[in-house]
Amino acid sequence: MSVLWAPRAWIDGTWAERVALRIGADGCWADVTAGVPAPDAAELLPGPVLPGLVNAHSHAFQRAFAGLAERREGEHDDFWSWRDRMYRVALAISPDQLRAVAAMLYRELLRGGYTQVCEFHYLQHQPDGAPYADPTELGWALADAAADAGIGLTLLPVLYERAGFTQPVLRDDQRRFRTDADSVHSLARRFAAARRPNVNAGVAVHSLRAAAPASIHRLRALAATIDGPIHIHVAEQTAEVDDCLAATGRRPMQWLADEGLLDARWQLVHATHSVPAEIDAIAASGAGVVICPTTEANLGDGVPDLPGWLAAGVPLALGSDSHVGRDWREEIRWLDYAQRLVRRQRNVSAAPAQPATASRLLSAALGGGATAAGFARWGLAPGARADLLVPDPADPVWVGLPAAQTLDALVFSGPARPFARTLVAGRWVPDDDVALFARGAAALQALHGR
Amino acid sequence: MSVLWAPRAWIDGTWAERVALRIGADGCWADVTAGVPAPDAAELLPGPVLPGLVNAHSHAFQRAFAGLAERREGEHDDFWSWRDRMYRVALAISPDQLRAVAAMLYRELLRGGYTQVCEFHYLQHQPDGAPYADPTELGWALADAAADAGIGLTLLPVLYERAGFTQPVLRDDQRRFRTDADSVHSLARRFAAARRPNVNAGVAVHSLRAAAPASIHRLRALAATIDGPIHIHVAEQTAEVDDCLAATGRRPMQWLADEGLLDARWQLVHATHSVPAEIDAIAASGAGVVICPTTEANLGDGVPDLPGWLAAGVPLALGSDSHVGRDWREEIRWLDYAQRLVRRQRNVSAAPAQPATASRLLSAALGGGATAAGFARWGLAPGARADLLVPDPADPVWVGLPAAQTLDALVFSGPARPFARTLVAGRWVPDDDVALFARGAAALQALHGR
Repeated sequence: MSVLWAPRAWIDGTWAERVALRIGADGCWADVTAGVPAPDAAELLPGPVLPGLVNAHSHAFQRAFAGLAERREGEHDDFWSWRDRMYRVALAISPDQLRAVAAMLYRELLRGGYTQVCEFHYLQHQPDGAPYADPTELGWALADAAADAGIGLTLLPVLYERAGFTQPVLRDDQRRFRTDADSVHSLARRFAAARRPNVNAGVAVHSLRAAAPASIHRLRALAATIDGPIHIHVAEQTAEVDDCLAATGRRPMQWLADEGLLDARWQLVHATHSVPAEIDAIAASGAGVVICPTTEANLGDGVPDLPGWLAAGVPLALGSDSHVGRDWREEIRWLDYAQRLVRRQRNVSAAPAQPATASRLLSAALGGGATAAGFARWGLAPGARADLLVPDPADPVWVGLPAAQTLDALVFSGPARPFARTLVAGRWVPDDDVALFARGAAALQALHGR
Repeated sequence: MSVLWAPRAWIDGTWAERVALRIGADGCWADVTAGVPAPDAAELLPGPVLPGLVNAHSHAFQRAFAGLAERREGEHDDFWSWRDRMYRVALAISPDQLRAVAAMLYRELLRGGYTQVCEFHYLQHQPDGAPYADPTELGWALADAAADAGIGLTLLPVLYERAGFTQPVLRDDQRRFRTDADSVHSLARRFAAARRPNVNAGVAVHSLRAAAPASIHRLRALAATIDGPIHIHVAEQTAEVDDCLAATGRRPMQWLADEGLLDARWQLVHATHSVPAEIDAIAASGAGVVICPTTEANLGDGVPDLPGWLAAGVPLALGSDSHVGRDWREEIRWLDYAQRLVRRQRNVSAAPAQPATASRLLSAALGGGATAAGFARWGLAPGARADLLVPDPADPVWVGLPAAQTLDALVFSGPARPFARTLVAGRWVPDDDVALFARGAAALQALHGR
C-alpha cells in the first residue's frame, strides 16, 4: 500500500483541499480523504491532481496516418474519400506495426490525460482477408501495446459483415474486417477470460449500414452471457441517415430505439445527426453517446446537438477516434467552441447549476466514459481504479490564476503542456517515451514505404 | 556572421533539401541556398525548419484572464458579456503587471511559432482615466516585454473615442482607452522614432462603432506621413453590422470601401460577417484580413467566409487576439475545421493547385502576416529578418512520417510539442522561460487579488 497527498484534487466535480489518497493492493483507491495534512510517508504531489479520463472511442491503427489525409485528392473531399485512404492503411498494417503504433499512441493518450481506452476493434484478419491462425492475434497486439504503454484497455470486437444497407457483402477492401455475431461474441469471451491486467472487453456493431438487423439482434442476445459495454457507430454522416431512412423508414437512432435493442450498456458513437424525438428515445433507453470532437471536425461530420443531449441527461463520453487529437483538453475546448461558432453564444454547455463549461463537460465525460468502458466506479473515490493525472506544476496556463479556476484554464487557455505524471491502477506510467516513440516511428516508416 | 544548415527548410511553400542559411550582421538572412552540403563551421540543425509567423492581432493584457471567462455569469453569455469581464481586467492592470504578463505571453507565442506580434494597443491611460506623465508608458511596457521575451513587435496605437454609433462619448469603463486621431499619430511617430531593435509601429482604428467617420479620415490623412500598417476591427459581431447598417445604411466593410479609405496598408481584423460584394470590394482595395480562429470560436463570433476570401485573393493573416490559444498550429487546424463542420466537407481551404491545406494556409498567413506587420520581406529568403523555427526533433507527431508531409502532421496531428528552438533577427531565443513565467504568474496573482 502507498499513500499520495495533493494540495488539491478534483473530486465529484469540484476542488477538494489537502487530499490523502491511499492505494490498495488491488490497484484501486482504498481511501480518499480531503481536508487532512499529509500522512507520514505519503508521496507529496506538487499541485492539483485530476482523475484520469476514459477515451471511449479509438481505432488505434488510424494513428498511423494522423496528419497524412489533409490534402484534397479530388474535386470533392469528405468522410467517404477519407475512408478510402484509411482503408489503404488498414490493408497494409502488420501485427507488429499495429503494436508499435498503438503503444506510441497509447503513451501519447496517457500524456494527454486518458488512462483507459476503448478500442472499437474491427481489424481482425490478415491483409488478404484470411483469418490469422489465432483469431485474437490483432486483439492481443492491442493489449500488448496497452501494456507497453501502461494504459487500461477495453477491447470491443466489432460486428462487420456488409458494405451497406443494400450491399449484403463486404467490399474487397473491407476483407480484414469480416465477422459475424458469433465470432464477435467468441472474441469478447476470450479477451475477457484471459484476465490480463487492466484489460476488459465488450462488443460492438460497426454501424447499421454494416450489419444486418438479424445479426444485431443475435449479437445482443449473445451479449447477455457476457459483461461489458456494447458500442455502435451511428448517425455520423447524413448519407448514412438517408440510407437508413430509405432502407428502414426510420432514422438510425430511432431505429435502434424502436427495435428495443438499447439499454444502459449501449454507447452510440458520434450521434451527430439527430432530431429531438431521437434524443428523447435514447434518453428513455438509458444508452449513452460518445462524441469525438477533433475527429468529427477533421472529417467534416457536422455539429452535434450537444445542448439537446445534455438537457435530456443522456450520458456523454468523449473519444479521440482517428487520433488527429490526443488530449482531452482540446476535445472539451472544441466541443464547446463548435457550439459557440454555430450558435453565436459562449459557454453553451454551461447550465445554471453548473456554470463552468469545463467542469460540466469533464464531469459528464468522467461518468459517461466510465460506463462506456464498463466501470461501475471511476474517479478519485474508494473502490475506483487508482488513476490520477498531475498537471505540469510549472505550466503557465494555470499557475498564478485563482485556484478555483485551474480546470477552466487547463482546458481553455492553451495549448497546455502534457500532464507531468500519470497514475494507472496505482502505478506511475514509466518515463520510457523515447523508446516507445522510436519504435512507433520505425513502424510508421516501414508502413509508409521508406 | 554565422551560418546554419538544416536537412530541410520550408521555402516558398515547399520543402527544400540541404539548406544553408547565412545570417548577416543586420540580423537578416544574407544568403539562403538549398541543395548544398553543410558549410564548414555551420551550426547543424537537427531536422526540418520553418519560417517564423507574424501574429497579426494581439491584446497582450487579455492574456491575464485567458481561461477565466469560461463560466456563464447570466442567462445569456456572448461577446458582449465577455467584454464586460475583459474591461474589469483592463481597468485593473498596472504597467509593471502588463510588462510581466506580456513577457510571459510573448515567450509562449515564440514557443508556439510566432516571431513577431502586432499589438492592437488601446490600453493607454491610468486606471482612473488620467493620462500617464509619459503617454507612451504602456506602449513601452509592451516593448520592454517584447525585448524580455525576444519577440519582434509592431505597436499599433488605437483610435478609440466613443462607445457606439449613437454614443458619441466613451463609457466610464472605457476611460483608459481614450485617444483621438492626433494623439494616435503622435504615439505612432514616437514609437517608430525611438528605433528600438525589432520594434516598428503603425496605427489602428478600434472599430467603426468606436471612432467617428471624420476622425477615421483624419487619422488616415495623418498616416500618410508615417510608415506602417493600419489595422481596424470589423464585422466581428452581427450586432456591430446591424448598428452600422442603421447608422450609415451600409455594412461595415462596404462602408470602408465606399469611403475610399482602404489600400494595401489596411488590415481588417476578424471580417467574420461578410457578403460577397464586400469581399469583392476589399479585394479591389488591396486590403488584407486578419482572422483569429481560437478567439473567434471562444467568443462565439461566427464562421468567416474563408473560401470567399481565399478565392478573391485577399491577403490573409492570423492573430491570437485574446490569447486563449497561443500556437499557430491550432489556429490553422481549427480555421479549416470550422469550415469543415459547417460545410460537411474536408480540406475546405485546399485548392487544385495547392491541395495541402496546411501549406496553403501557412503560405497565405506568412505573406499576409508580413504585410500586416509592415514587412516588405519575410521568410527564409535573403533580406528577410533571420527568423526560424525548429520543431522538436523527437516529436512523435511528425517523426517517421513521409518528409513531404511534415507540415501536414505538425498542424493536423496534435497536440504538437512547442517548437524546440526559435531564432529571431539572427539570435536564438533564450532559455529563461522559468524566470519569465514566474514573473508572469506573480503578476497574475497580484492582479487577481490573492
